[in-house]
Amino acid sequence: MIESSKETKAARLTYGMVGGGQGAFIGDVHRKAAQFDGKNTIVAGCFSRDYQNTLQTGAMLGIDESRLYKTYQEMAVAEGKRVDKIDFVVIVTPNNLHYPTAKAFLEQGINVVCDKPLTPEVAQAEELAKLAKERGVFFCVTYTYTGYPMVKHAREMIRRGDLGEIRFVNAEYPQDWLATPLETSGQKQAAWRTDPAQTGKSNCVGDIGSHVENMASYMTGLSIKSLCARLDTFVPGRVLDDNASIMVNYENGAKGLYWSSQIAVGHDNGLRIRVYGTKASIEWAQENPNYLKVSYLDKGTEMLSRGRDKLYPHAASYSRIPSGHPEGYFEAFANIYNTFSKALLKKKAGEALTEDDLDFPTVQDGINGVKFIDACVASSQKGAAWLEI
Amino acid sequence: MIESSKETKAARLTYGMVGGGQGAFIGDVHRKAAQFDGKNTIVAGCFSRDYQNTLQTGAMLGIDESRLYKTYQEMAVAEGKRVDKIDFVVIVTPNNLHYPTAKAFLEQGINVVCDKPLTPEVAQAEELAKLAKERGVFFCVTYTYTGYPMVKHAREMIRRGDLGEIRFVNAEYPQDWLATPLETSGQKQAAWRTDPAQTGKSNCVGDIGSHVENMASYMTGLSIKSLCARLDTFVPGRVLDDNASIMVNYENGAKGLYWSSQIAVGHDNGLRIRVYGTKASIEWAQENPNYLKVSYLDKGTEMLSRGRDKLYPHAASYSRIPSGHPEGYFEAFANIYNTFSKALLKKKAGEALTEDDLDFPTVQDGINGVKFIDACVASSQKGAAWLEI
Amino acid sequence: MIESSKETKAARLTYGMVGGGQGAFIGDVHRKAAQFDGKNTIVAGCFSRDYQNTLQTGAMLGIDESRLYKTYQEMAVAEGKRVDKIDFVVIVTPNNLHYPTAKAFLEQGINVVCDKPLTPEVAQAEELAKLAKERGVFFCVTYTYTGYPMVKHAREMIRRGDLGEIRFVNAEYPQDWLATPLETSGQKQAAWRTDPAQTGKSNCVGDIGSHVENMASYMTGLSIKSLCARLDTFVPGRVLDDNASIMVNYENGAKGLYWSSQIAVGHDNGLRIRVYGTKASIEWAQENPNYLKVSYLDKGTEMLSRGRDKLYPHAASYSRIPSGHPEGYFEAFANIYNTFSKALLKKKAGEALTEDDLDFPTVQDGINGVKFIDACVASSQKGAAWLEI
Amino acid sequence: MIESSKETKAARLTYGMVGGGQGAFIGDVHRKAAQFDGKNTIVAGCFSRDYQNTLQTGAMLGIDESRLYKTYQEMAVAEGKRVDKIDFVVIVTPNNLHYPTAKAFLEQGINVVCDKPLTPEVAQAEELAKLAKERGVFFCVTYTYTGYPMVKHAREMIRRGDLGEIRFVNAEYPQDWLATPLETSGQKQAAWRTDPAQTGKSNCVGDIGSHVENMASYMTGLSIKSLCARLDTFVPGRVLDDNASIMVNYENGAKGLYWSSQIAVGHDNGLRIRVYGTKASIEWAQENPNYLKVSYLDKGTEMLSRGRDKLYPHAASYSRIPSGHPEGYFEAFANIYNTFSKALLKKKAGEALTEDDLDFPTVQDGINGVKFIDACVASSQKGAAWLEI
Repeated sequence: MIESSKETKAARLTYGMVGGGQGAFIGDVHRKAAQFDGKNTIVAGCFSRDYQNTLQTGAMLGIDESRLYKTYQEMAVAEGKRVDKIDFVVIVTPNNLHYPTAKAFLEQGINVVCDKPLTPEVAQAEELAKLAKERGVFFCVTYTYTGYPMVKHAREMIRRGDLGEIRFVNAEYPQDWLATPLETSGQKQAAWRTDPAQTGKSNCVGDIGSHVENMASYMTGLSIKSLCARLDTFVPGRVLDDNASIMVNYENGAKGLYWSSQIAVGHDNGLRIRVYGTKASIEWAQENPNYLKVSYLDKGTEMLSRGRDKLYPHAASYSRIPSGHPEGYFEAFANIYNTFSKALLKKKAGEALTEDDLDFPTVQDGINGVKFIDACVASSQKGAAWLEI
Repeated sequence: MIESSKETKAARLTYGMVGGGQGAFIGDVHRKAAQFDGKNTIVAGCFSRDYQNTLQTGAMLGIDESRLYKTYQEMAVAEGKRVDKIDFVVIVTPNNLHYPTAKAFLEQGINVVCDKPLTPEVAQAEELAKLAKERGVFFCVTYTYTGYPMVKHAREMIRRGDLGEIRFVNAEYPQDWLATPLETSGQKQAAWRTDPAQTGKSNCVGDIGSHVENMASYMTGLSIKSLCARLDTFVPGRVLDDNASIMVNYENGAKGLYWSSQIAVGHDNGLRIRVYGTKASIEWAQENPNYLKVSYLDKGTEMLSRGRDKLYPHAASYSRIPSGHPEGYFEAFANIYNTFSKALLKKKAGEALTEDDLDFPTVQDGINGVKFIDACVASSQKGAAWLEI
Repeated sequence: MIESSKETKAARLTYGMVGGGQGAFIGDVHRKAAQFDGKNTIVAGCFSRDYQNTLQTGAMLGIDESRLYKTYQEMAVAEGKRVDKIDFVVIVTPNNLHYPTAKAFLEQGINVVCDKPLTPEVAQAEELAKLAKERGVFFCVTYTYTGYPMVKHAREMIRRGDLGEIRFVNAEYPQDWLATPLETSGQKQAAWRTDPAQTGKSNCVGDIGSHVENMASYMTGLSIKSLCARLDTFVPGRVLDDNASIMVNYENGAKGLYWSSQIAVGHDNGLRIRVYGTKASIEWAQENPNYLKVSYLDKGTEMLSRGRDKLYPHAASYSRIPSGHPEGYFEAFANIYNTFSKALLKKKAGEALTEDDLDFPTVQDGINGVKFIDACVASSQKGAAWLEI
Repeated sequence: MIESSKETKAARLTYGMVGGGQGAFIGDVHRKAAQFDGKNTIVAGCFSRDYQNTLQTGAMLGIDESRLYKTYQEMAVAEGKRVDKIDFVVIVTPNNLHYPTAKAFLEQGINVVCDKPLTPEVAQAEELAKLAKERGVFFCVTYTYTGYPMVKHAREMIRRGDLGEIRFVNAEYPQDWLATPLETSGQKQAAWRTDPAQTGKSNCVGDIGSHVENMASYMTGLSIKSLCARLDTFVPGRVLDDNASIMVNYENGAKGLYWSSQIAVGHDNGLRIRVYGTKASIEWAQENPNYLKVSYLDKGTEMLSRGRDKLYPHAASYSRIPSGHPEGYFEAFANIYNTFSKALLKKKAGEALTEDDLDFPTVQDGINGVKFIDACVASSQKGAAWLEI
């Protein structure tokens, strides 16, 4: 467990946020996750295009009004000038604003945590990566689901060859919240996600198909060589996709099958991945994240329980409480922030960083995601033709 | 429940069997299923190319030696001449022998029950259908899994519009028994199934992908318009496919995603189907067949239990015992035979037959299966290109 | 698997039945189970106190009218005189008739298969056991649930010490079919089961609590030393118990906790047993009978699958089909009949019988059940006081 | 969801902690839960009898050294004198220290949050209650599991009669962490929990049986009239109980059956409750806390999902994120703190408090728990005799 015994001083970071004003769901989740382990304090914000919202959100959070900004541009410049400038900015705006916002802060040398999908265009994502590298700052893209301890254990198992050679990946992410034309009802989340101007080229693949891609990539380490994607739009009047079936061929000859859907009635947030090797397989489901099913060719199927069964050390270090006390979405999210924050503290202290220290999703994951979305949209537009990626 | 109260006389049918000698798995299953409801008695057989096996199997079954035959040809002719000839023949040979065997019995005007996939070639299947029609006999193809009561209830729900308009089908059939080169070990089942000469063009799609196709078709009534299939052969040295990913487009605009595998470590016999409509969805899994999960857009997800919850009458008529007393594979199989036998008895008695009376899988299902296998193999050979079916 | 390969001749037994006429549920189940493996043919019967019912049931079953009897007394005497008398009788009457019926057939030297609970009174059960011993006949009491392969595997594990020393047993059998006063609606099953004159001293413990006792005893081999039982009657107007909580102390210091209920809304037929040892535990549930959960102190919890995972040989011999093809209640029931019939055939052939050959529930299990019911009723009447058994 | 939109200013409370130094598990959980919603800041502490531990823990938490105390007595007095004294103290010491610590702070008029079981003796618990009332302060006892939204929904359903009249409760809490003599290995948690001097009269009932009692009481509102408890000590050398079976009779005629165990191999933290009414039943399990199974007599069993299905408003107000994003133990714990803190803020502001405002476990729950433990121990010592409570 990652807790108290390992840390001996009250190291602290400060951060600001763009987006996430009152009424937004994900801003509050980011803030709770960021502060979960007591390392990060929010001290600045531009929470909304509506400055009243920013003021109210800031007041609620106890932020000094002098650090509540009308625009992200103003915030980036002002914070950039402060001696006690924020250690990092969290960007939780609609997708189309990720790029200019991140750019503005990167130009001030401020570390970035940004929601996914990173940008509408691959070139934008690559530009951000380049800029981050030039400025020597950290850039985390919050693919949250990789923060679960059992995901990390599955990854370790695969890296160490416990499953043998990987042959097939079956991953899916069904939801049903867009099974009806919710976007016409004034629901804010539905409105921007189904609007190409705010969300980009894809809704379903962009929002959740990208999590499938990231999870499969993170867990298996496999790279996609080519894919064939059929994007569907089932709800009348909708412009973008709300369901997607994708076949992928990986570089090493393994194959994958992905499905994401927002119209699959009965599913809440059903991210699930199954990885089949020559010797064993794993199955993990986000909705029951404290368990990992491991099946072997030659012995009984095992259900591993976080906190109970022996995990590889790196994975075990992400488990906070004893088995049977469920950890959930907030804790996975907090794991992303905790790793990011510890790395940043180490960096600020001039300490060396190991691969494990840097085990948070980065701008490279963000680029891969945008490329994947791009390829899916292109394949589908050609009649679900096969495309090299 | 279908039991005693409905039937008032000891109506009986006799049958013979080709294939299914000692050492074969499926012959015994067919015999137990055929006799389950006390309607059918086995009286003739050609159980093996090895006549000693036929004699032994016949003795074990109490069959008079005069009706134990050396070849199916001899059996068809000899039985065809008897006044008390068998009412139907059950064909449980390797796939390549289905066609000539069925043909021989059809030519004698004998009703046929044949295992699936029906034939290696579409033309053969169509010829059998034509012959059956000409001779006015019944031809049942044992797609067993449609015999489960909860499958029939799901079908009724869909037909009556309880799910709204069907948008998406996700069906899979993973197994792991061929994850290693079992066919090189002398295992008889593995040997013939992976041998093109005995099994036909496809192993995985032929054996189990065809069940996926049949289940989706039976449950939803949807016809496949086009498909894109990627057939994989993961085990070194194997000629035919052992894993298959298939996208299908249905005639009505709905879409489907099928996966079948024999190398998916951890899966026994995991046929599972999920059907998503505009209002509700269903999920059914063959390994836990007494339950049907039904999810609605606007109320809690329900788990329907066979025997407990109200099923539509036709589906309910297939349930034999009270809820919580699990019915399994044998009972599903017996349901196929029971329906077939009741229909045959009615026909022999000159009674009219309703659509429900004829609710057993027929030669047309067999043809559809062979066409599907053909299209999958052809698509895959073209690099998983889209094909009209 | 027990099938064709092992048996080389068409050995056959004949049997008769008392009770189980049209409209009764369990008679048909017994008949299907008895004939499942092709060994037993029904040739005589007294299916009902209503002779018309007997005649109709007999006609449906193809029984010669000369062997359809008006009373069980007449049947016992008439069959006892025949050269080709039935090999065994199956008794599926209400509980109060088990004793006189079984006695009548035992006196004719005819083997008996009788439903449980065996008799209302312990003395009656003991008299039957004595009589069976004197006449040298088999007496099977159909505690069906011990016929499941995974139950037999759990028993073997415990006998071999795989769980260490047994400490605690938690077993339950909740149902909900008597949550309302169903017996006042004319439902036949409910009427006789809640009527002391037909069912005996206890309804809930007698009908299903006795299965809990038998399952725990069969699986663990533990004997009950003392118990404390609280029998409840929740439905107004009902005389007998419909819910029961029972603490038991076993001879060896282990402890048990049993619960049976007919008013537990939401449960179909929820027999479930958990056995905890010093090293490992097992959990088995009748409604999902093809799996056995095994948990260890020092490794991941395993889910064993019938047909897939290695079972001890005796248990494996009860599995009929490959993994993932569910076996259910009929097959468990058929396992009881198959073992009984094989033992009877061996006995008739003068062959020696091993312990495994005799692995069917006997009159001794029947006696234990009646003693258990008696003790529970007595304890409850004394305010759920502790009683030695 | 409880979040940002409802709160408009950065209201804050400060607190101190006694116990919970580095190496203790539960202290960190309390701190994370207390700060989860951004209302509470830790500013004082006496984390250990070892002052070095207190200093290190305080440093890690960023607490000014002037408010790090050597003894709880010193802390209570010093804080009591401060103008900016802590709003409440959190007591997470071994059980035997709860009473003197709580008393010391109550005497200073400081609100208390205390772990359970409250005290070893009933009289002590009652004295604390009296003192809290006299001083007009809040006293929360952290029965954490009642903080889950689905628990609150089940409670609302029962209160509103959705289940009909309650007949039977079956609740259990199996664990396996004390299946071996862990206390002899130097494991700190095991050592104090099995030591009567630190833990009180009971280990298993005290630690987890008390959660069963509280959960049943909270959810159903039923009061225990009498009980019969059998406490077992299975691990050789252990003094206190490690397994307990308890029958309870409620005031209204309903009955209950409780089981708690620390030697049940295979169980992590298996708190589970099933409540059966005349019309419906519920089942909830702490290890999968986002779902509530609801079964009805006359329709399909429903699985309610937090965030998805309509909960009663009070229950819904405890849900933080959309369905399928699992909330776990931390969030349940945070719900207790959030309710407590909001109530305290309202009280400080002189606002009126509703019943819902006060929906956190109180000193009365603490007293009930101690009485229950007492009665169980007494019953068991008399041979599991029935006792009025």
